[in-house]
Amino acid sequence: MQELIAIFNRIQPFIHKTPILHSILLDETTHAQVYFKCESFQKTGSFKIRGATNAILCLSDAQRDKGVVTHSSGNFAQALSLAAKNLGVKAYIVMPSSAPEIKRKAVLGYDGIVTICEPTLEAREQTSTKIQQETGATFVHPSNDVDVINGQGTACYELLQEEQNFDYIIAPVGGGGLIAGTCLFASAFSPNTIVIGAEPFAVDDAYRSMQSGKIETNDSIHTIADGLKTQLGNHNFPIILKSVQQIIRVTEKEIIAAMRFVWERLKVTIEPSSAVAVAAIFKETALFENKKVGIIISGGNVDITKLPF
Amino acid sequence: MQELIAIFNRIQPFIHKTPILHSILLDETTHAQVYFKCESFQKTGSFKIRGATNAILCLSDAQRDKGVVTHSSGNFAQALSLAAKNLGVKAYIVMPSSAPEIKRKAVLGYDGIVTICEPTLEAREQTSTKIQQETGATFVHPSNDVDVINGQGTACYELLQEEQNFDYIIAPVGGGGLIAGTCLFASAFSPNTIVIGAEPFAVDDAYRSMQSGKIETNDSIHTIADGLKTQLGNHNFPIILKSVQQIIRVTEKEIIAAMRFVWERLKVTIEPSSAVAVAAIFKETALFENKKVGIIISGGNVDITKLPF
Repeated sequence: MQELIAIFNRIQPFIHKTPILHSILLDETTHAQVYFKCESFQKTGSFKIRGATNAILCLSDAQRDKGVVTHSSGNFAQALSLAAKNLGVKAYIVMPSSAPEIKRKAVLGYDGIVTICEPTLEAREQTSTKIQQETGATFVHPSNDVDVINGQGTACYELLQEEQNFDYIIAPVGGGGLIAGTCLFASAFSPNTIVIGAEPFAVDDAYRSMQSGKIETNDSIHTIADGLKTQLGNHNFPIILKSVQQIIRVTEKEIIAAMRFVWERLKVTIEPSSAVAVAAIFKETALFENKKVGIIISGGNVDITKLPF
Repeated sequence: MQELIAIFNRIQPFIHKTPILHSILLDETTHAQVYFKCESFQKTGSFKIRGATNAILCLSDAQRDKGVVTHSSGNFAQALSLAAKNLGVKAYIVMPSSAPEIKRKAVLGYDGIVTICEPTLEAREQTSTKIQQETGATFVHPSNDVDVINGQGTACYELLQEEQNFDYIIAPVGGGGLIAGTCLFASAFSPNTIVIGAEPFAVDDAYRSMQSGKIETNDSIHTIADGLKTQLGNHNFPIILKSVQQIIRVTEKEIIAAMRFVWERLKVTIEPSSAVAVAAIFKETALFENKKVGIIISGGNVDITKLPF
């Protein structure tokens, strides 16, 4: 427990304390008490700066001198770049050529050193290995890294500092870093709270992994929730298997409806991956009836010229 | 000063304390320190419930028994309905037939008693006078009412409770209730802070009123900032004339650009009327350079299927 508090204290100067929002309309609609921990307002627009910052702070001085490297087309690319910049460390970011121009620019804006590669996992891994060898930079995985997992959990810690006695906390499941970190902090600071994951039907690898007891993959990754296409890893899966009670799956239509509800009613621009956790509330109304529920709104990075409504 | 605190304490149980957001990117872009008081997260999606609640709380028991009436196609209709509902009072809302279905439904959702009339100011006034005569309900003007003005100013009070030493506070100017209330609280609790108004060029009646010293009207009202089409009134104009240093005018293009910036970067869905105040910061960068600036984000009620970008 002291260790977890130390992690929070360590990254705290480098992150925003994000607001917790509450909607009477939603409560009336769902007959639950729902609190949104809005990491969409976090620096770089998602929770990922928490884990990125912690990972860099856990490096030795010698390691920091040589920088960090990751491959990501999404929020972790920006997060690691800014976390590194804040700590005076170089960040090498491998991005697939398919990544939107706007994301590449955002990384460059945080002084990330971008290398473009072919849009395959193999090319991404090869390119980042090459950079590691050439520069001596430390590889930081976006979700399957103990220090990253610990950092991501601090969003849950802040939620529990402000609100207590949650029956449930829901987080979306992509690579598994956020939900695993959420489990660690919830177990320590609110042991009676049940952690639930939310996932699109279209990429329900975590749901299937929970069933089979081993890490499953997705055959296809066609979902609007582009942050949730990745699979679990050996560092976060054991935590998830132990502490997550269930994974609620939702359809693409339910994701879009939940996203629209939050945009229109809560006035927060959330990304589809975050809407997955909100959709879970609407889906399993009987489960959440008369319960106090926290939802980790993971991020708000979305192209507002390409909305699904 | 004690009187103003009493107003805040009176309405406080019926309103949200809205979060104050801050964007490092915006600060870097503008070379100012900018704090957003986000009334878009307020109940009914705008600051207007503050004034509506105060107005009803200032009525006698006999008056409350007979209800309140207003004419509005916008945020005040919803605000008065919910404020009245919260206090067990009937709210008669006169809405023009041109008001969007979604707004009428929102009012009905708060138990407002809707009467539809022709979409002219004359018809709206006649209809609400008729309701007053028939029911004995008290007319509450959306912006030109002393108690409404006092209530609206509490957003500024909350801002000043959390952050001090503002050089400027900017609010959009429509009917004048928000900015007049802002002036009252800023003068009392932060006398060195300069209050500035922001207005679309297309409906710059407040700018011209400040020049001429009398209440001016708009010949045409073609602006995306639909909340700012109204004109000042005899209760708020003297306060504005005395305490507002200047009105910054912005173009429609500047309003849309500022709105987009806030949606994309701050992740808050604000309505065009609120974006007008944000556009003022981008417009007068020299004025705000190295200054601490508060912006009242007035509301977030917008049709997300009809965005200007």
